[in-house]
Amino acid sequence: MRDRRLVVADVPAPTPGAGEVLVRTLACGICGSDLHALKHAEQFVETARRAGNAFVMDLGRDVVMGHEFCAEIVEHGPDTTRALPVGTRVCSRPTLLRATGPQSIGYSNDNPGGYGEYMRLTEALLLDVPNGLATEPAALTEPMAVGVHAVAKARLQADDAPLVIGCGPVGLAVIAALRLAGARPIVAADFSKRRRELATALGADVVVDPAETTPWQSWREAAVYRDTSRAPALPSWIAGPAVRPAVVFECVGVPGVLDQVMAAAPRGTRIVVVGVCMEADTIHPLLGISKELNLQFVLGYTPDEFAATLRHIAEGAIPAAPLITGTVGIEGVPDAFVELASPERHAKILVHPGR
Amino acid sequence: MRDRRLVVADVPAPTPGAGEVLVRTLACGICGSDLHALKHAEQFVETARRAGNAFVMDLGRDVVMGHEFCAEIVEHGPDTTRALPVGTRVCSRPTLLRATGPQSIGYSNDNPGGYGEYMRLTEALLLDVPNGLATEPAALTEPMAVGVHAVAKARLQADDAPLVIGCGPVGLAVIAALRLAGARPIVAADFSKRRRELATALGADVVVDPAETTPWQSWREAAVYRDTSRAPALPSWIAGPAVRPAVVFECVGVPGVLDQVMAAAPRGTRIVVVGVCMEADTIHPLLGISKELNLQFVLGYTPDEFAATLRHIAEGAIPAAPLITGTVGIEGVPDAFVELASPERHAKILVHPGR
Repeated sequence: MRDRRLVVADVPAPTPGAGEVLVRTLACGICGSDLHALKHAEQFVETARRAGNAFVMDLGRDVVMGHEFCAEIVEHGPDTTRALPVGTRVCSRPTLLRATGPQSIGYSNDNPGGYGEYMRLTEALLLDVPNGLATEPAALTEPMAVGVHAVAKARLQADDAPLVIGCGPVGLAVIAALRLAGARPIVAADFSKRRRELATALGADVVVDPAETTPWQSWREAAVYRDTSRAPALPSWIAGPAVRPAVVFECVGVPGVLDQVMAAAPRGTRIVVVGVCMEADTIHPLLGISKELNLQFVLGYTPDEFAATLRHIAEGAIPAAPLITGTVGIEGVPDAFVELASPERHAKILVHPGR
Repeated sequence: MRDRRLVVADVPAPTPGAGEVLVRTLACGICGSDLHALKHAEQFVETARRAGNAFVMDLGRDVVMGHEFCAEIVEHGPDTTRALPVGTRVCSRPTLLRATGPQSIGYSNDNPGGYGEYMRLTEALLLDVPNGLATEPAALTEPMAVGVHAVAKARLQADDAPLVIGCGPVGLAVIAALRLAGARPIVAADFSKRRRELATALGADVVVDPAETTPWQSWREAAVYRDTSRAPALPSWIAGPAVRPAVVFECVGVPGVLDQVMAAAPRGTRIVVVGVCMEADTIHPLLGISKELNLQFVLGYTPDEFAATLRHIAEGAIPAAPLITGTVGIEGVPDAFVELASPERHAKILVHPGR
């Protein structure tokens, strides 16, 4: 990203510092946040600054984006243990650990991300890709870990019935993690037919086109207590069968969706906000108050969740491969950004910078 | 409330239905929601309708407001047990139980509230005021129960350090309930000196004038781990001592405050939204996401919490009396509404309709 545009150009290879390794990117996913960071660069930086987080970049300098990667060790820097030899395929959280604090990889002027051929990574964060796992699904560890984390933060109880709003990569990762957690039936909604097919492939039990029926109607039918001995007694004036508690995952992240979810949610619903809305948003607090809603905002994953996600992908417990709907070389990145704006064709496009 | 104005007029006394009693109001608190319902009547009704709750009134007909009351049994309706005799002083949730569902008392065209001389109440909901408890503090059971409920919904852990934003009646009720729960130190913020004094009287350990210092700075000083063996290890790049987890009670309920709290709150803060903001409000979801904030909206109380609150007031565990800053007869209600708009002079004004 140079002057708010994507360009393919030669830049100096990064130099690994103490405790760091130089790696060659094998595959790197394109994230919706990267599209947003390109399109609304000033806003992205300003919001990042207000939120006090690490994604603050100087837009007058180059940024090599890409934070969902699988790479290969090329060279060990000083003060490394070299426990993993040169040539080892590795994944890592997109973070450099430095004495002054963690630094972002991919939203940084100094730490190039996986759209470039070379990155530096912190040796202590490296996870070797298990034998037999292909590079491409391994590169999906990062986005799939987002789903694992969101489901962990949802504090699911035995009777909770999930609803996933939006089946882009974030929603699909949540669906895979819900399936892993055994929280079923999983109801998922998206306007795109292709994305609903992917939702089914990732483990959704019921998919809904919001243009045809409301997601909550389908959810209500799916969430009726099958084992009526577990259902609470309802007051006489409430019609219909008892329905399980709702946990809804907001995976769209555009203004207005949160308020819609709050308006439609049943009393006591827990809303896990996973979609990253970078703009101001309007809500009606009385909707939350009158139904005692709970909003849990989530971001990222813990180190343990990241490592567990890679294992789950390797063992087939998280089916990452269906998400990959395209691959491009380094020259194809600008066009891939354009392609990804249309949800009908793609979920995840992987960049192979070395090809 | 007649034609969006408060008037003192004769209306027919209500008739108790099956399972109901006729009571004479002894004292009834004026609630901030009543001020809002008068000033923004159409909006109040429209928002109530959208939220699917019971407070939907026909503004073309009279409404007798008042839902924080202590009353005296005058007459038993049909199908009553008469377990409590005529003359017994009672409190009740402001709800009528009917076969078709619960109905509001006080935000209703049909069920007059405590600003009038007579109400009908459901016999099964009556709680007799314990011997020795004066009528006026008993009338504060309803607003104090709001605080007890908010603190219960906060799911407090041993190390949580509370911050109360806004010390109107709602914030004061939260402070009393936090003290009862043993969650200390209690830091409370309000621009009004009078309200800060009341906060101290209700149990706040530290009070803050936001015009002079930020509430979060005072909170941070108060929330440092005294027992450092309980403090988590901090990364080397974080300066200063470890601080306990933050639980903040938003008790203001005007647009903009929630976003301010989200901007200033430390990572992982739980925000309990108790103040009732009836208008649309703007938030920046990225603030919530980047710090993984949790928002718990709360409303009202459970039947058990209401009954427990009356007991706590009777036993002196909740000091309700300091809240009462004025009393008026039925003719004084319109002026009391005007007085209450100024936070410097008053917390809770009680109406004695029979005086």
